[in-house]
Amino acid sequence: MRIGLAGLGTVAQGLLTLLKENREQIIAVCGQPIDVVAVASRTRREVDLAGADFSHDVLALAKRNDVDVLVELMGGEGIALEFVDAALNGGKPVITANKAILASHGDRLFELAATRGVMLGIEASVAGGIPIIAALTRSLAGNSVERVTGIINGTCNYILSAMSDRGERFEDALAKAQQLGYAEADPHFDVGSIDAAHKLAILAALAFGIPFDRAAVYAEGITDVTPDDITYAKELGYCIKQLGIARRTAAGVEMRVHPTLVPLGTMLSSVNGVMNAVQVNDNATGSLLFHGPGAGGRATASSVLADLLSLVRGDRPIRRLAAATTQRVLPIEAVESAAYLRIPVIDQPGVFARIATILSEHGISIEGAIQRERAIADRKVPIVVVTQPVREAVMIKAVAALQALPAVVDRVRRIRVEHAAA
Amino acid sequence: MRIGLAGLGTVAQGLLTLLKENREQIIAVCGQPIDVVAVASRTRREVDLAGADFSHDVLALAKRNDVDVLVELMGGEGIALEFVDAALNGGKPVITANKAILASHGDRLFELAATRGVMLGIEASVAGGIPIIAALTRSLAGNSVERVTGIINGTCNYILSAMSDRGERFEDALAKAQQLGYAEADPHFDVGSIDAAHKLAILAALAFGIPFDRAAVYAEGITDVTPDDITYAKELGYCIKQLGIARRTAAGVEMRVHPTLVPLGTMLSSVNGVMNAVQVNDNATGSLLFHGPGAGGRATASSVLADLLSLVRGDRPIRRLAAATTQRVLPIEAVESAAYLRIPVIDQPGVFARIATILSEHGISIEGAIQRERAIADRKVPIVVVTQPVREAVMIKAVAALQALPAVVDRVRRIRVEHAAA
Repeated sequence: MRIGLAGLGTVAQGLLTLLKENREQIIAVCGQPIDVVAVASRTRREVDLAGADFSHDVLALAKRNDVDVLVELMGGEGIALEFVDAALNGGKPVITANKAILASHGDRLFELAATRGVMLGIEASVAGGIPIIAALTRSLAGNSVERVTGIINGTCNYILSAMSDRGERFEDALAKAQQLGYAEADPHFDVGSIDAAHKLAILAALAFGIPFDRAAVYAEGITDVTPDDITYAKELGYCIKQLGIARRTAAGVEMRVHPTLVPLGTMLSSVNGVMNAVQVNDNATGSLLFHGPGAGGRATASSVLADLLSLVRGDRPIRRLAAATTQRVLPIEAVESAAYLRIPVIDQPGVFARIATILSEHGISIEGAIQRERAIADRKVPIVVVTQPVREAVMIKAVAALQALPAVVDRVRRIRVEHAAA
Repeated sequence: MRIGLAGLGTVAQGLLTLLKENREQIIAVCGQPIDVVAVASRTRREVDLAGADFSHDVLALAKRNDVDVLVELMGGEGIALEFVDAALNGGKPVITANKAILASHGDRLFELAATRGVMLGIEASVAGGIPIIAALTRSLAGNSVERVTGIINGTCNYILSAMSDRGERFEDALAKAQQLGYAEADPHFDVGSIDAAHKLAILAALAFGIPFDRAAVYAEGITDVTPDDITYAKELGYCIKQLGIARRTAAGVEMRVHPTLVPLGTMLSSVNGVMNAVQVNDNATGSLLFHGPGAGGRATASSVLADLLSLVRGDRPIRRLAAATTQRVLPIEAVESAAYLRIPVIDQPGVFARIATILSEHGISIEGAIQRERAIADRKVPIVVVTQPVREAVMIKAVAALQALPAVVDRVRRIRVEHAAA
């Protein structure tokens, strides 16, 4: 099995190392060696290519006749998409870790692969070393999936874990993540949840048979989460995680990424640091959870290797689920979820009652609340409530009504709550 | 795809239900329906067979020409093994949930299947609905697995969770498990760790390429764990779980099932009630954890369905890892592990020093300890220590020496400690 490798970054280097270190094992399980015979990358890094050809011409690599499979580990969209297109058009199987191109062009690329009768392997595109794509498309393919819930951005989880463990502010936790190499110099892609939205679009497409469409994912970042929110959440029995949630309801499919209160004691609440986890709820197993490293060269290379072995074994390429393709994606306004509300008020008699009345007038029940003893009258204090699930559109109106109360002296903060964590 | 189904118990009923409920989905993903056309079972239960033939003659079912695959969900060894043998000998693919026959006869059965060129699907044999067999034999097949650590018996985990959450004694937690249907009337198979030993033998065979050999697994039950042990463990930062551990070391492969102190805050420590989890440590991902229902009709049927879909897709049967078959299994005496020691002493000055001296003389370092203030002199109190890892044979000698101290007035209790939980 001869690989043409596009890209020479962390994952590509991880793959080169893994193929070398595990060479004997690979021959034992698939009866032949898997070798990188040609590498193309815009920049030539000081990496041992184990005798493979090197070129700067990525598109020429896609057209080489002396490779059996093309592995795309460049990332980004422009040239990477051209490369994958060229390779598939040339009738070559492609393995890619590129969530950005899949989340936007997945349908077209899978169709192209099917037309040419070749594999498009995407295990490495979501959650690094966790074999979640195989789980959804193979092991659980006969089950009716109701929900996929994931901690699918290690940077966000690292920052929220640090804020929770050490009481750090977002800015300080982010700075530390950048020092440790867990966050980019421009962190928006991660903390703004663009990365997680891409991954969720892929998971939802595979779980529900809907189109790959990252634009349909509602995404909210973690920049507004404060140490106070984390403290109040803990007091109410929750931690705060950045979750990607894709859920099939009678009305349509929800796709959203946002900070979320998760009950303490659940498996998802135990996922700490840069680790990822994906929980799948289906009508056969009830609930499964897959936990592991969501990034890193070797870990992500493990998923590339899984696709390579599948190709060597001659496994049939995965099918998309045709059954569910008519499902529409719900706009966020139609999504129902419980909420944590932190309402900064001037503490006066009757304030809590007025808040409760406004919520009640909007049909919103209160599930739990924190109301501090009054220290000094007329001082600013937060009232914190957790509500029952309610439609987003209703919640927005209720929050506006709360915000208009004279006693509410600062911005009302809302964070969604998810009770269905396993 | 026409199934001949042997057995009509919980899992068989779960499969019949799942094939019916998910029929449309199954056709969508594999292009054809999967139907049970014939059922054989020693007892005819009141189950809707959806028009399938019923017979009491299990062995005749194995020889029917009008089925494409035989699914063995009887359990036990005698007739079930004959059935699987007959089916494979007849050139039919077999899917089985039978850990007992695999853990003893797995090598011969896989060889027979390979000779006949048919699939032997065993996803349902370990950890119910968790797709751990696919993970080990497909997704992670190119990685060098160093360790598999599992909570693979739901009954034990339920009992230990109940003892931990509610301070119950073993006997009371067991009685409740029996009431809830989580434990059999004769619980020895579960609480004595025979069941877990079978599963660990299968996981180790697949992870390391060693023979399937349940007799080589060291198995210790949970009957001796007391609420006091759980309390002391918690104080030291641990919970107690029944773990199956298979580890590859330079000297050989360890295979053992026993109560184990697991650090609080790890994913394994968060696995509660009847749930199962399997952690895999390998040289590419570092560590992955798979969590889900370890038993139950529908959940286990999900794994049977996974194998059925794999068969319909035409996936190549899994290969065993030939590379590692020369590895020997270590006897428990050669295994190294840290230990929790509860030493019941008559509280006299210098007792702790004498204990520390004995441990030190055996080259055993103390990692942590609980020594209560003396309430009343000459009363029985426990001294609790957690040691650094040490060879089993050395620990046995040290415990004998402790036991011989005049101040030690009751049996010294030892429970192994595992620090490598993710």
